[in-house]
Amino acid sequence: MAYQVDMRDVKFQLFEWLPTEKLLQTERFSQWAKGDLEMVLEEAYKLAAEVLAPTNKEGDRVGARFVDGKVVMPPSFRDAYQKLCEGGWISCINSPEFGGMGLPEVVGTAINEFFFGANISLSLTALLTRGAGYLIEKFGTGEMRQLFVEKMYSGQWGGTMCLTEPQAGSDVGASKTRAVKQENGRYLISGEKIFITSGDQDLTENIIHLVLARTPGAPAGTAGLSLFVVPKIRVNPDGSLGQPNDVQTAGIEHKLGLHGSPTCSLVFGPNNQCEGFLLGEELQGMKLMFHMMNPARIEVGLQGEALAAAAFQEAWQYAKVRLQGRHWTRLKDHDAPQVPIIEHPDVRRMLFTSYAYVQAMRALLMQTSYYIDMTRVTEGEEQERYQSYVEVLTPICKAWASDWGFRVTEWCLQVFGGYGYTQEYPAEQYLRDAKIASIYEGTNGIQALDLVARKLPAKGGKPIRELLGQAEATFKKLRNDPQFMEPAWMLGAALKQIEDISKGLTKRPDAVMVVLLNSVPFLDMIGDVLGGHFLLDQASIAREKLWALCKEAGVDPKDEVAYKQFLADNADAAFYHNKVQAAIHFAYRVLPNVTARAVAIRAGEMGPMEAVL
Amino acid sequence: MAYQVDMRDVKFQLFEWLPTEKLLQTERFSQWAKGDLEMVLEEAYKLAAEVLAPTNKEGDRVGARFVDGKVVMPPSFRDAYQKLCEGGWISCINSPEFGGMGLPEVVGTAINEFFFGANISLSLTALLTRGAGYLIEKFGTGEMRQLFVEKMYSGQWGGTMCLTEPQAGSDVGASKTRAVKQENGRYLISGEKIFITSGDQDLTENIIHLVLARTPGAPAGTAGLSLFVVPKIRVNPDGSLGQPNDVQTAGIEHKLGLHGSPTCSLVFGPNNQCEGFLLGEELQGMKLMFHMMNPARIEVGLQGEALAAAAFQEAWQYAKVRLQGRHWTRLKDHDAPQVPIIEHPDVRRMLFTSYAYVQAMRALLMQTSYYIDMTRVTEGEEQERYQSYVEVLTPICKAWASDWGFRVTEWCLQVFGGYGYTQEYPAEQYLRDAKIASIYEGTNGIQALDLVARKLPAKGGKPIRELLGQAEATFKKLRNDPQFMEPAWMLGAALKQIEDISKGLTKRPDAVMVVLLNSVPFLDMIGDVLGGHFLLDQASIAREKLWALCKEAGVDPKDEVAYKQFLADNADAAFYHNKVQAAIHFAYRVLPNVTARAVAIRAGEMGPMEAVL
Repeated sequence: MAYQVDMRDVKFQLFEWLPTEKLLQTERFSQWAKGDLEMVLEEAYKLAAEVLAPTNKEGDRVGARFVDGKVVMPPSFRDAYQKLCEGGWISCINSPEFGGMGLPEVVGTAINEFFFGANISLSLTALLTRGAGYLIEKFGTGEMRQLFVEKMYSGQWGGTMCLTEPQAGSDVGASKTRAVKQENGRYLISGEKIFITSGDQDLTENIIHLVLARTPGAPAGTAGLSLFVVPKIRVNPDGSLGQPNDVQTAGIEHKLGLHGSPTCSLVFGPNNQCEGFLLGEELQGMKLMFHMMNPARIEVGLQGEALAAAAFQEAWQYAKVRLQGRHWTRLKDHDAPQVPIIEHPDVRRMLFTSYAYVQAMRALLMQTSYYIDMTRVTEGEEQERYQSYVEVLTPICKAWASDWGFRVTEWCLQVFGGYGYTQEYPAEQYLRDAKIASIYEGTNGIQALDLVARKLPAKGGKPIRELLGQAEATFKKLRNDPQFMEPAWMLGAALKQIEDISKGLTKRPDAVMVVLLNSVPFLDMIGDVLGGHFLLDQASIAREKLWALCKEAGVDPKDEVAYKQFLADNADAAFYHNKVQAAIHFAYRVLPNVTARAVAIRAGEMGPMEAVL
Repeated sequence: MAYQVDMRDVKFQLFEWLPTEKLLQTERFSQWAKGDLEMVLEEAYKLAAEVLAPTNKEGDRVGARFVDGKVVMPPSFRDAYQKLCEGGWISCINSPEFGGMGLPEVVGTAINEFFFGANISLSLTALLTRGAGYLIEKFGTGEMRQLFVEKMYSGQWGGTMCLTEPQAGSDVGASKTRAVKQENGRYLISGEKIFITSGDQDLTENIIHLVLARTPGAPAGTAGLSLFVVPKIRVNPDGSLGQPNDVQTAGIEHKLGLHGSPTCSLVFGPNNQCEGFLLGEELQGMKLMFHMMNPARIEVGLQGEALAAAAFQEAWQYAKVRLQGRHWTRLKDHDAPQVPIIEHPDVRRMLFTSYAYVQAMRALLMQTSYYIDMTRVTEGEEQERYQSYVEVLTPICKAWASDWGFRVTEWCLQVFGGYGYTQEYPAEQYLRDAKIASIYEGTNGIQALDLVARKLPAKGGKPIRELLGQAEATFKKLRNDPQFMEPAWMLGAALKQIEDISKGLTKRPDAVMVVLLNSVPFLDMIGDVLGGHFLLDQASIAREKLWALCKEAGVDPKDEVAYKQFLADNADAAFYHNKVQAAIHFAYRVLPNVTARAVAIRAGEMGPMEAVL
């Protein structure tokens, strides 16, 4: 089966839901017309389907290998990576000044969904290269920018982020890697970093590492970290490659998934000759790194969504052709023919719940990306407001979409029955690949902590109030609507749970413990509410368009036979119809979980703290 | 880390919760004393930890291989399998007449938890051998029993069940394998079977296949299937091995997990010389097969529980030694030392929810096994009653424990952070191995269909009413109890949801569709309610014992400091304390999900059926 994406929904979210076209009226994006963006999307899908996806299985089976101290990438990745570079895709959202395409972030998110879904392992190299390049563009000296950025944006050189050490995983502040300033202004870097994605690979002629390290006398914890640019191969002033720097690849991890993505252990300065350049100022390392980590966190959420979307498409296609069992209306009729399993209600339930979650996750990621764009075309208070939204939404994108993305891959594997457990179909690879997203770029526990301890209290709670206020507006808009009344009230009830908990907490003496213990379920509650709001908001748009189509075709939606026939004949009508159903489905099946999770939090259930563990 | 089991909880459930000792007063189990059973459990754990578990990783890495038309098992399995045979463990619950140990089923369940948790791939061969042997013991002629059963119970010969064909997975009735009766009374078998666990292996000198096949002129569907005993190597009348039968291994599957367990494609009669013996009567195949499938379904639920238990133990041990981050009371104190991650509330939450689920799943499986024992020591109406409980509980054991068992392996992987995604720790193997349990022996969708369409309506709904009546009794017993009042009311509320839905359904014109669409969530609701009931019931026993221990030691449970010290010093007290906390935790964190899932069912939400898929 060819790799499929839901282009119709992507275009709906971009152009029928989000005001993406308004962005194109700003100076920053004035070179793009809607038609251009649609063409770019089609091109990206073509590349994903024809070039990236066909290498995904080999990437998994052959994997990145560690041979004679070097990483050898799966052979098929070379050509695919080349095509990714040639099209300028690696830096599709980056600044044209250094060769980027300059697309709006929200379009880049759509494109990267296609790429991650087609081959996450290969696309990871691109993600890190773009991210590292961006950090150098933003904080590097003029010389650094000249030397590195364009070559990274084009994909000629790779990039990495080096934070983790054996004793410093989630606890970045425990890093021990040292950086000692030399007389020439450069730094000697020494230490070991682990879990470095694309820390070595043979797709690019050079790799530019961004390394967190501690300068002599620096304070303990993250406050003592500085950030360094450490090329794998030294770069001459004219941009040509010099001698190898003193960076050694010690090995790669054997992992559950992402086999095509080398997760490296790197030793910096085994011969005490590893040269690095300070990025920004000393002791600002963590602050700078967050400029790379925050977008990366959103992209990790996007990976969860993208793999879920790909898994859903595969399962859906399979369910339409796999014959098994009789139709549910003729279960006891032995003469009834076998039907495609998509006719079985339980299979439809698994698929449609997956469908609804994928669209809700996509909406969350698209809206967050749109806000990022808005920070770039606004100023002052308005810009700050959008920035504050992005900050609140970042951990939710990362954790909610990675957890539910994994769950969708699980449901979709189940659709395949026994075949889903075999490597004959890609379902099991999607599941294995997707699991990483809840872990890296800060585990989902860390994301939830970031949300409750930093992001929710920020600016006196205004950003989250405003975001939930949008959900409240959807509730109010639809609470008297004949079709959406009940789903809307479910959204209202879920919102009230969040409000009650937030209010209740201020009065509790054990508030800190309650918050820490329940940060993950609380993040999940907010994610569910936003998802429900997005889908309902989209459904109300879809319904208007559906009615318009019906009217145009002279079809009465209440005439069941004629309406069904119309849906069968008209793909757009079917899409809008599904959109409406997905919102209702999500409201009934997911929003009640918000109330369920609130029970333990409101009661301050403390078993895990009371238990002797 | 050595393989760990929660022996304390196993013994609690066996001897402090269930009336296992009463079983020992019956004639059937009169040769066993409680002390014997405890010794057997210790021996089984020793074997699991010292012999089976050390081969689990090799089984996964090397895997079963297909070489020159034959399956080669992981080398380390040979010795481990031998020890399993020597101890008589394969048939520990089977009849002593044919060499079985004759243990109560409920003890066998405890033992098999240890074995599955230690090495599910190897233990699967034992499971199928025991099951196939049991079917021959029950339905075979005297000659068949003489020839096969003892050699299977001892593990000298293996066994399989052969149902699935490429076009007949969940849809067993679509099987095409043919069986034609010969003049000598034997049958010629021809056809292809796939997904046959241990369909070939080199641990035993012979393999006895139980094959579903269709005789000429038999009706369509499952009603036309008969069951045949088909040895891999023919057996002479004196029990010695003769010529190979005409059974060919066509290949093995490459799977997400269970790498040490060969999942075979078998061709019966490629040369039209495959000889089989009818088991029971013609056209009774499916009915007979269910005598093997039903226990196997419970054992698959047990696999889910066992892998969850093993994953929990690993994650728990890891969390106690892995230093990372600061204590939550000193989060902003940079001078605070790193603490074991078990101090972090979010890690405690993941672990304690896993702990509670594992104990709830264990209770479900133990109670069902106890009912199986009761069917063997009772007669008439009493026996029928226990049998009816087993029938209702079988699909719940299989589906609920496999779905939540997988979820627990996911949470436990998350506890490891980045290391959980690597093969350095066993977390990722537990997750991969556990996934199969929701699929084989009838997907969980099939289990749910069996529950709602067959098991719940059986005997006018009396068995499920009586089982839920036990939960109701727990609610009534504890609803005025100062400590358990709120959890008890949560149990009551969850019960009411199930009752309301059941009543509401009878009035709906679309009841069939509602039932089919919601069979899986409905099964889950019943599983949650039973789990909540078991844990509360156990907690009320544990509390009495805890108070008695406190009294004995002169400790006042309200003196926080003294009580904590007592828990730290007294392992039994800590166990009972955790048991109490686990029940409360489960009530607050899981039982509200029952209400949440009821929302869509009560409302008759139909999105998946309305959608254009």
